[in-house]
Amino acid sequence: MFAPLEKPSLIRLGAIAALADIDVGVTLCREGDPADKLHVLLAGMVTLSAEAANGRSTVVEVVRPVRHLILATVLAGLPYAVTAATITRATLLVIGAAELQALLRNDPALASVVMRAQALDFRAMVREVCDLKLRTSAERLGCYLLELSQEQQGRDSIQLRLPIGKQLLAARIGCRHENLSRAFASLREFGVETHGKRVILHDIQRLREFALPTGIATPKPS
Amino acid sequence: MFAPLEKPSLIRLGAIAALADIDVGVTLCREGDPADKLHVLLAGMVTLSAEAANGRSTVVEVVRPVRHLILATVLAGLPYAVTAATITRATLLVIGAAELQALLRNDPALASVVMRAQALDFRAMVREVCDLKLRTSAERLGCYLLELSQEQQGRDSIQLRLPIGKQLLAARIGCRHENLSRAFASLREFGVETHGKRVILHDIQRLREFALPTGIATPKPS
Repeated sequence: MFAPLEKPSLIRLGAIAALADIDVGVTLCREGDPADKLHVLLAGMVTLSAEAANGRSTVVEVVRPVRHLILATVLAGLPYAVTAATITRATLLVIGAAELQALLRNDPALASVVMRAQALDFRAMVREVCDLKLRTSAERLGCYLLELSQEQQGRDSIQLRLPIGKQLLAARIGCRHENLSRAFASLREFGVETHGKRVILHDIQRLREFALPTGIATPKPS
Repeated sequence: MFAPLEKPSLIRLGAIAALADIDVGVTLCREGDPADKLHVLLAGMVTLSAEAANGRSTVVEVVRPVRHLILATVLAGLPYAVTAATITRATLLVIGAAELQALLRNDPALASVVMRAQALDFRAMVREVCDLKLRTSAERLGCYLLELSQEQQGRDSIQLRLPIGKQLLAARIGCRHENLSRAFASLREFGVETHGKRVILHDIQRLREFALPTGIATPKPS
């Protein structure tokens, strides 16, 4: 998010940011509370969850580094839209909302990268809504596995470890626990083998053709 | 969105806005195109739809007045995140993205209402994701009917006409056509009677207790 900034902007930003090492299972901020801090995840994993009106809550996203959390409400001075909690030890950059807002008023370059980040967040949520409406759990699971496999790009076959448990994974995909097993079963014919948390993707290309992920850079024909 | 603004801001905004009367079935902007205009819907109805990676597209939202459309991408100068099309005759305020961005740089009050609107848009999408993950089609349909009934607040029993067809409604709710009929059937025990597009809500309070809408102002105890 801050990558396109020039040095002066980065220095001003550094002056209002603090680094924090956080234990597993710590709530960073709670849905509905005043949004007084922007968190940027540098290492570890964080879940974003929110409550539906019936009082049940679910995981909206599992955030991996490097990503900011819940930017929009922080900028607008509105209550947090989601609850963020660490599910591993995590390192975060913490920036006070008031200090950030003050900086933004005087730094158009910073304001413009922040606007852009906010728009991308919005678009990601729009995609999530479309995916939930249009795609099967198996397709969504396939996309998630391909996302995880990105770090080992270029190979045909990839071994990976699920970074989250099956219950959390089901919530992330947006299905019930029993449907998750069914989704894994139907991915078998696309080369997906599972042993508990260990997953082997035998044929990335076939899986990609089935799940058709968005947002994953497809290798350009050379 | 612009309601909290002082007169000078409104005048500057008025100077860069144009009023447009648009026919039914017109595409206002297309997902992926450069976002060069902000639209604010003053009368009529507009669908926002987007494509999933498998090429199928669905309705993300059916917008009713007064609402802005797809603010985030316009501000960030990113391509439109969704396609907007009129489904009735519509009156819109059209504001050039470049002119709006220039105004925002010099008008902190305007920038702050716009940031707020953007954050609320984001939160609405987060809620939509939660609802799709956690709630049944019948609950979601109940919420939609309660939303429509808001204009006749204060009554126990309400007659209304569905403003959109069953196919569009199913897409809006996020279910298949056959599940929509099932959802209507299961709302019968909460006092929902349907005759084609005509819907009678015999017991608003029971429907509300079943569907538990968010964002609808519950009457305060006096």
